[in-house]
Amino acid sequence: MLEFYFQCQKFLAEALKKWSDKASTGGLKPLEEEPITAGDSLGRITSEAIFAKLSSPFYHSSAMDGYAVRFTDTFGASETSPKKLKIGHQAVYADTGDPLPEGFNAVIMIEDVNIIMRPQVKPQISPSPSSPPLKGGEILYPSPLEGEPACPVGRGEGEGALLMNSFILEEATSKHKTYATEFIEIIKPATPWQNVRIIGEDIVSTELILPENHKIRPVDIGAIVSGGHVEVKVRRKPKVVIIPTGSEIVEPGVELKKGDIIEFNSLILSSLVREWGGEPLRIKPVPDDLEKIKQTILDAAQSGDIVIVIAGSSAGSADFTSEAIAGTGEVILHGVNIKPGRPLILGWVNNRPVIGIPGYPVSAYITFNLFAKEIIYKLQGLEPPQPEYMQAKLSRQIASSLGHEEFVRVKLGKVGDNIIATPISRGAGVLMSLVRADGFLRIPSMSEGIGAGAEVDVEMLRQRSEIENTIVCIGSHDNALDLLANILKKNHSKFSLSSAHVGSMGGLMALKKGEAHIAGTHLLDEKTGEYNISFINKILGNRKIVLINLVYRQQGLIVLKGNPKNVTGFKDLTRDDVCFINRQNGAGTRLLTDKYLKDIGITSKNIKGYEREEYTHMGIASAVMTGIADTGMGILAAANTLGLDFIPLANERYDLAVPAEYVGLETISALLNIIRTDNEFRDSVLKLGGYDISDMGKVIYES
Amino acid sequence: MLEFYFQCQKFLAEALKKWSDKASTGGLKPLEEEPITAGDSLGRITSEAIFAKLSSPFYHSSAMDGYAVRFTDTFGASETSPKKLKIGHQAVYADTGDPLPEGFNAVIMIEDVNIIMRPQVKPQISPSPSSPPLKGGEILYPSPLEGEPACPVGRGEGEGALLMNSFILEEATSKHKTYATEFIEIIKPATPWQNVRIIGEDIVSTELILPENHKIRPVDIGAIVSGGHVEVKVRRKPKVVIIPTGSEIVEPGVELKKGDIIEFNSLILSSLVREWGGEPLRIKPVPDDLEKIKQTILDAAQSGDIVIVIAGSSAGSADFTSEAIAGTGEVILHGVNIKPGRPLILGWVNNRPVIGIPGYPVSAYITFNLFAKEIIYKLQGLEPPQPEYMQAKLSRQIASSLGHEEFVRVKLGKVGDNIIATPISRGAGVLMSLVRADGFLRIPSMSEGIGAGAEVDVEMLRQRSEIENTIVCIGSHDNALDLLANILKKNHSKFSLSSAHVGSMGGLMALKKGEAHIAGTHLLDEKTGEYNISFINKILGNRKIVLINLVYRQQGLIVLKGNPKNVTGFKDLTRDDVCFINRQNGAGTRLLTDKYLKDIGITSKNIKGYEREEYTHMGIASAVMTGIADTGMGILAAANTLGLDFIPLANERYDLAVPAEYVGLETISALLNIIRTDNEFRDSVLKLGGYDISDMGKVIYES
Repeated sequence: MLEFYFQCQKFLAEALKKWSDKASTGGLKPLEEEPITAGDSLGRITSEAIFAKLSSPFYHSSAMDGYAVRFTDTFGASETSPKKLKIGHQAVYADTGDPLPEGFNAVIMIEDVNIIMRPQVKPQISPSPSSPPLKGGEILYPSPLEGEPACPVGRGEGEGALLMNSFILEEATSKHKTYATEFIEIIKPATPWQNVRIIGEDIVSTELILPENHKIRPVDIGAIVSGGHVEVKVRRKPKVVIIPTGSEIVEPGVELKKGDIIEFNSLILSSLVREWGGEPLRIKPVPDDLEKIKQTILDAAQSGDIVIVIAGSSAGSADFTSEAIAGTGEVILHGVNIKPGRPLILGWVNNRPVIGIPGYPVSAYITFNLFAKEIIYKLQGLEPPQPEYMQAKLSRQIASSLGHEEFVRVKLGKVGDNIIATPISRGAGVLMSLVRADGFLRIPSMSEGIGAGAEVDVEMLRQRSEIENTIVCIGSHDNALDLLANILKKNHSKFSLSSAHVGSMGGLMALKKGEAHIAGTHLLDEKTGEYNISFINKILGNRKIVLINLVYRQQGLIVLKGNPKNVTGFKDLTRDDVCFINRQNGAGTRLLTDKYLKDIGITSKNIKGYEREEYTHMGIASAVMTGIADTGMGILAAANTLGLDFIPLANERYDLAVPAEYVGLETISALLNIIRTDNEFRDSVLKLGGYDISDMGKVIYES
Repeated sequence: MLEFYFQCQKFLAEALKKWSDKASTGGLKPLEEEPITAGDSLGRITSEAIFAKLSSPFYHSSAMDGYAVRFTDTFGASETSPKKLKIGHQAVYADTGDPLPEGFNAVIMIEDVNIIMRPQVKPQISPSPSSPPLKGGEILYPSPLEGEPACPVGRGEGEGALLMNSFILEEATSKHKTYATEFIEIIKPATPWQNVRIIGEDIVSTELILPENHKIRPVDIGAIVSGGHVEVKVRRKPKVVIIPTGSEIVEPGVELKKGDIIEFNSLILSSLVREWGGEPLRIKPVPDDLEKIKQTILDAAQSGDIVIVIAGSSAGSADFTSEAIAGTGEVILHGVNIKPGRPLILGWVNNRPVIGIPGYPVSAYITFNLFAKEIIYKLQGLEPPQPEYMQAKLSRQIASSLGHEEFVRVKLGKVGDNIIATPISRGAGVLMSLVRADGFLRIPSMSEGIGAGAEVDVEMLRQRSEIENTIVCIGSHDNALDLLANILKKNHSKFSLSSAHVGSMGGLMALKKGEAHIAGTHLLDEKTGEYNISFINKILGNRKIVLINLVYRQQGLIVLKGNPKNVTGFKDLTRDDVCFINRQNGAGTRLLTDKYLKDIGITSKNIKGYEREEYTHMGIASAVMTGIADTGMGILAAANTLGLDFIPLANERYDLAVPAEYVGLETISALLNIIRTDNEFRDSVLKLGGYDISDMGKVIYES
């Protein structure tokens, strides 16, 4: 099998076309229907149009609390000559929703009538104890007065229920015989059908309530039931069988050995299936064994509507997915020109779509969205919801290789009137890039990249309002920023703090370019010995900036626990057996490093590893912990967090620079309030170690 | 209880403030946490920050299929002087994801190496049958060559697994002893850590994965598990007890008597609770009995976090909710100045929020959104997602009474570059207005209304893309349009047809004002005897219009089954015992009616009910069926649908007028395609009765 799949791989548009053609010729169509109780149908898809079986309301009823009347009886009423209507005959009390007695055709609001009490003098007889207790709201349709048409008896079936409400008290002497005679007085005539909910006001019997292929929402459930249905026919949920493969794969919670990989892709894909209306069925991981994989695919194509095989889709020595699909059915395509996500396989086994999804989590997510989502929706009779896009300004240039459509994850933030998109990690294995991303920026296969400042359309992964409530913090990294992000979210769930770590200089430049609300900075001016201020004046001269202290912190060399290489200071960096790891250009820590080297007269050429750069203190600490380097410059908090040792070299001031016009924003106020007053935040910073918070929140300088 | 609650009712802002103050003083706070398996945590809310327990990856691993090397071994390789590396010693094959042997620090892609086979001449010994079968992808870490540091044995624990892949075949002669000696040849040096996924590339142990109060998404689940967690702590779901009340309330499916109301509000509210992350608990309907209601509220406040009492919140004779809340706890507010939704009750019983929700479905929906949603989110530590707004142009004026903030349901549609908002039914009892609505337009309490053409902000109930895929059809009503809407949705789930019925004239005016894509029209020019064309030229003179026939249809007088009033034609409309129901001004059917009346010399004054107007054929048919009128002018299909009789009077042409620039839109093309070719549509139209479809889809005229 020396064929390289990527020699015959397809461009994305071709691949999608091939897949959709196969879906047509393969006879993929909406699944059969199943009946379901209306109350349980939220989010399900109608499999046929739903027409009303009943009108709603199905009788004329009062739309107000008041008196039902015949509008003809009210002619001529005016303020100067009010008209009296006999209660129980010409006017019948009705609560909102009560049916109108037959022949009645208007309701006068209770506020618009005067009730004339005329207590009877005759001996009053209480209702007999044997009669059913009288309830408010029950209506007695009385015998007709002379000369008036009979009013049929409504609720209560002729029983002696009384016209009772909190406003009027009538007394019964006997059934259907005599009544306390009272009247209402009105001062204007009723118009026909005023304050009446006529039959079908809401829904007319036979009317279309919902079309076929409609996703049922809460109000729809009400309308279905109101239209006389108890059950509703919906499409069966597409069953998606998800098969993780790989001998190195282990279940979450298992004790890990080197070489093990925790299986989590299937959990991501299962959750996506749920969000898309399908029913995921996850199979236990299958080892790299061609026959086992083949059998599992065959079984899955029997029990499911779609089969997903995770990993083994590339051309490595243990990659059997393509062979397994070919051996059980048809491989339609192997490899697509996208990044990440190239080693994708599309197949068809026993009349079921089978997708070989690459094992890197970002590749898995992207290809599953591109090739499984549409099928899952199609089986429900739907097209996937169209993504929402946001126009944004790209903060840095992105280079991209020709021939691949690339899916770049970006953070979005609204700074002033601009939406700024900042690319984040592009590794196919960096799942956290998806967790952190606000959107995808697609770079076409015929493009070599996009320049900084370009207007781009970003496919959104979060709500617009979330983006607008995000504080964009660009600049130097400090562990306290992570704590701050967490406390902000805890106290104000709608706000977020998004940090990008490009070094102090990069932060000030981002403020200058209007790409950030806040910059974290610790730039030492060698001449003055003062931090940040001279740099702010130089870079942001014409801008009003408020400089607020976050912390003082210890910088030094991070080494393994016990300091096995016995590093004591910068002079040891030239030793042959010591490998250094550096921070990127523009980082305050890099400036500090270079200053120290200059001070003691060491040339960077003589330092092994000087060229290798990390972007955060945690990156440095992690490189030391994992043996990539023996030492690097960073803050004590980072060393502490990973249980490393630390050789202190400097105490420095770390500030937040905020353009004055942003200080009053609701988001920034909330953030500053936490910095200045939140004890949970302050305590957690101190717990990191190496911090002095005595000036935390203090304004150091205003330009 | 003669106090009128609306005398002390509050403005919305006051009411919200009072409610939120009570939530604070009442001690409402996020619910306690519960552990849950990560895979089941989709949509749940983190109750604490989640930090990584493990780095991911937790060992250096190959990022590509290729050979792991020590980069120092590769120095000096070039095209002119390639360098050979001994397989198994200086170069170890690794699939993507395989751990790097210790001391190795770069990977060269398989595509970038030449493999030099040097088969051994010595007698070849097959692997002993007793050894475990060799599997692809397993790696043997060989014994060191002389002078090189030892390479610790990795996976396979020293067992004789072979370096096997589809590209290379090595042969074992014995365990750990001799190997077929082969080499790879490279033509450029490796850089340190190239093609290596270093430890923590994705997640560094101790790193923040998710903050507190975060709603878990599919990718988050992957990151949680990848960071070493099996379980995650989330907030318990708020339990919302929903109590429908009312003696007139019956369960769905029960045989209905006049006066019964099917209980469906609780189903709508339960579904909303689910959408908002809560757990609804619906109680069986409670009759209008103060003591029973009180007891139910007390029980609910025990078992739930929030109590919702539906209906009985007004001041009618059977409205006990306020009294029941007052009798078990505290009524904070009764009545709020909004429309619909005025009779709202806010209360607090046994330390639990209790909301009395009005019984009209639209009122229930609006008040539940305004007053319950925030509480349900708060109990989860969240704020409700902010609504999305869309700027739109109001198509007709809305008058609104001073003193009430009104929530007007509107349809939205994108016509040309404008988003058009058209108000729909404003009745509190018209649930279908919510089903049909695309958004809410709020009219402030201090406003008397909004003029036609005004720019308004509409709170959206659907996705932006759904609105952009909606065909706006304004004009005359025909039952075939409902069928068309359904077939369009069935064939193209992302497209919708939204019809507003304002009569033929209104439709042409809507085209003129750029508020519709299509107008249904059947305007008879008395002079020419021709339909529509002269009106189009007059109203839309400077616009290119394509006029497409939909149907020919029968118009006539609709009467009850058996025609009990013996109506035979227009002359009977002047009879004293015949009540007519009319269509609105501007409707083609109204023009036809007026033409007939003029032709036979009847003055409208002499017709009982001439002033009462309906907007659709179904409205006319429904009015006849329910006894509001004895007869009205309409199409046969409407009479047939409701099983009514029909006196035919005219055969008329019903066309669709489409501005030429819209004909090519994807949505309109799909619609026209259905009209012209879809047999399911054509058959269903014929089945309605009274239609001639011989010209269906034909272009009648182009201006």
